[in-house]
Amino acid sequence: MKEWEKNIRKVTPYIPGEQPKMDYVVKLNTNECPYPPSPMVEQAIKDLDYKRFRLYPDPDATELVRAIADYEKVPEERVFVGVGSDDVLGMAFLTFFHGEKPVLMADITYSFYDVWANLFQIPFETIPLNAQLEIVPEEFCRENGGVVFPNPNAPTAIEMPLSQVEKIIRKNQDVVVIVDEAYIDFGGTSALRLTEKYDNLLVVRTFSKSRAMAGMRIGYAIGSETLISALKAVKFSYNSYTMNQAAMAAGIAAIRDEKYFNQTIEKIISTRERAKKVLSDFGFFVTDSKTNFLFATHKTMEAKDIFEQLRDRHIFVRFFDKPRINQYLRITIGTDEEMEILYQALREILK
Amino acid sequence: MKEWEKNIRKVTPYIPGEQPKMDYVVKLNTNECPYPPSPMVEQAIKDLDYKRFRLYPDPDATELVRAIADYEKVPEERVFVGVGSDDVLGMAFLTFFHGEKPVLMADITYSFYDVWANLFQIPFETIPLNAQLEIVPEEFCRENGGVVFPNPNAPTAIEMPLSQVEKIIRKNQDVVVIVDEAYIDFGGTSALRLTEKYDNLLVVRTFSKSRAMAGMRIGYAIGSETLISALKAVKFSYNSYTMNQAAMAAGIAAIRDEKYFNQTIEKIISTRERAKKVLSDFGFFVTDSKTNFLFATHKTMEAKDIFEQLRDRHIFVRFFDKPRINQYLRITIGTDEEMEILYQALREILK
Repeated sequence: MKEWEKNIRKVTPYIPGEQPKMDYVVKLNTNECPYPPSPMVEQAIKDLDYKRFRLYPDPDATELVRAIADYEKVPEERVFVGVGSDDVLGMAFLTFFHGEKPVLMADITYSFYDVWANLFQIPFETIPLNAQLEIVPEEFCRENGGVVFPNPNAPTAIEMPLSQVEKIIRKNQDVVVIVDEAYIDFGGTSALRLTEKYDNLLVVRTFSKSRAMAGMRIGYAIGSETLISALKAVKFSYNSYTMNQAAMAAGIAAIRDEKYFNQTIEKIISTRERAKKVLSDFGFFVTDSKTNFLFATHKTMEAKDIFEQLRDRHIFVRFFDKPRINQYLRITIGTDEEMEILYQALREILK
Repeated sequence: MKEWEKNIRKVTPYIPGEQPKMDYVVKLNTNECPYPPSPMVEQAIKDLDYKRFRLYPDPDATELVRAIADYEKVPEERVFVGVGSDDVLGMAFLTFFHGEKPVLMADITYSFYDVWANLFQIPFETIPLNAQLEIVPEEFCRENGGVVFPNPNAPTAIEMPLSQVEKIIRKNQDVVVIVDEAYIDFGGTSALRLTEKYDNLLVVRTFSKSRAMAGMRIGYAIGSETLISALKAVKFSYNSYTMNQAAMAAGIAAIRDEKYFNQTIEKIISTRERAKKVLSDFGFFVTDSKTNFLFATHKTMEAKDIFEQLRDRHIFVRFFDKPRINQYLRITIGTDEEMEILYQALREILK
């Protein structure tokens, strides 16, 4: 090892779900939306004036922030936007988890949390889910330097009732509490209104799932003005211009088309509820998902075997080779047609 | 101050040049390109399939990386891309400047460097430029934890000869040396080929200036495979998907249109050389710019007065209220028409 290599930061990167470059039949492994974004997004992209690309984008993303603020019914000063919710969450870790005490997170949760903690050398402690794979609110009330959890949790797909979310916040008013609501639009109850009551609560959202815009990288956070200005200060200490002109235009169009958004959500929820039944009939135990994916374990067949046999048929789902969940598959809700292909394949594999 | 506020990271953000929301006559304050990007970019945006926005973008930005690798004649494994060169540089600071010894930077240089150092708690030391506002290579040879400088330097616009750049690298083979070539395309000599000789050298470039794409946020770095894989590991520990689909498509189109690129550069250089003469005739001392901006001080009139009087006329240039350079203006090279408006205004202000 050369001398300069000794000063390189050591990290263990997050591994995203595979983006297959080969032709695939059905891709149900990264929780993307099976439907395209609002047609208003198409128009917004067509209306882009490429000649303006020569200019820096608005560093405050004012119009996108305004569109989100209007939609969420909060003042603009309480909205922060970033390059996907990963950028927003990563920046929130860097900004708010700057103490000596451990940040609390579940043992089974979004697997980027401990990656950010390691990257920024933030001490953390993992709290086991209970046997039903639920977050136990009481366990999040010990002394800590911050709290972060998704609601619904990923990859379990299980929602915690708002009363329990509030219990965690109420018991943790000396630290920042981050509620990651990437999947809240699929039937969950948001903690967003609690940001009016608790100025240490940050709620994080994404355009990647319910708004079908994973490819454009837009996420946002809602919190008190104090939280949001602290986040902005760190953002402006890293990169003044994160949101490019195309992302802003697409984001504004997407959030304004509420009707299309609601239709998309309804279709996904309806497919999901049917999928729960079908998979149960196939001998799976399926958690009560409030997300756009299922978390399922088969009563007799190994998860890894099912995963591999689906993969052989060019059907991609997600398998986590991790303690406690290595008998589970995470299956994104696709279109009804895609789900039929999955069901047919499962019928063959399981028979 | 509430308890949770004590754990917020304290930062002093970078302040970007103003993006005026009012109508302006001429905007020469953020070193944007006065000409639009290649018409191939327009086509690439038109060809975007908005329906694919529902999918995550390629986390490796493979095609954009390939287009850059082809253009720069390096293997793909030696290319890293990010959301503007600020993202690339910020990530490089986080990745490579992880030791105890101070990182060396000039006292007058890109003002984001010390912001990143403060954000990531990196010790640093500033080395004064000489009286001619030049970097003194010998001064960058003391013991350190890394070296970073732009070439040409900003905001001085002065290029360091490649032999001197190499001298700094040769004397600093135990640390990572970052050469920030944001402005190299405007007549400078790149250190890029030296990355074949020195595996601790990282050369950083941007699409924001010479490629007229500030609004789309694309930057890149070229270095040894060791440097690039370390950068990638940190990137994948922060945000898997940084480059959105539109940015990648636009970037690929821009870098492939070499003819248009060369024409743009030629026009800007020709306008710049004339601007040097005109401003000298007006009583300015102008550094020998190898960039798309001038750095100029007037022999009798206060820089701040000129700045404000130009601003009153809705002509924006950049004034830095900082020691040693508060008698200078940084003036971006605009179109010939824009420069004529500037000259006319200066004639009135200086008479």
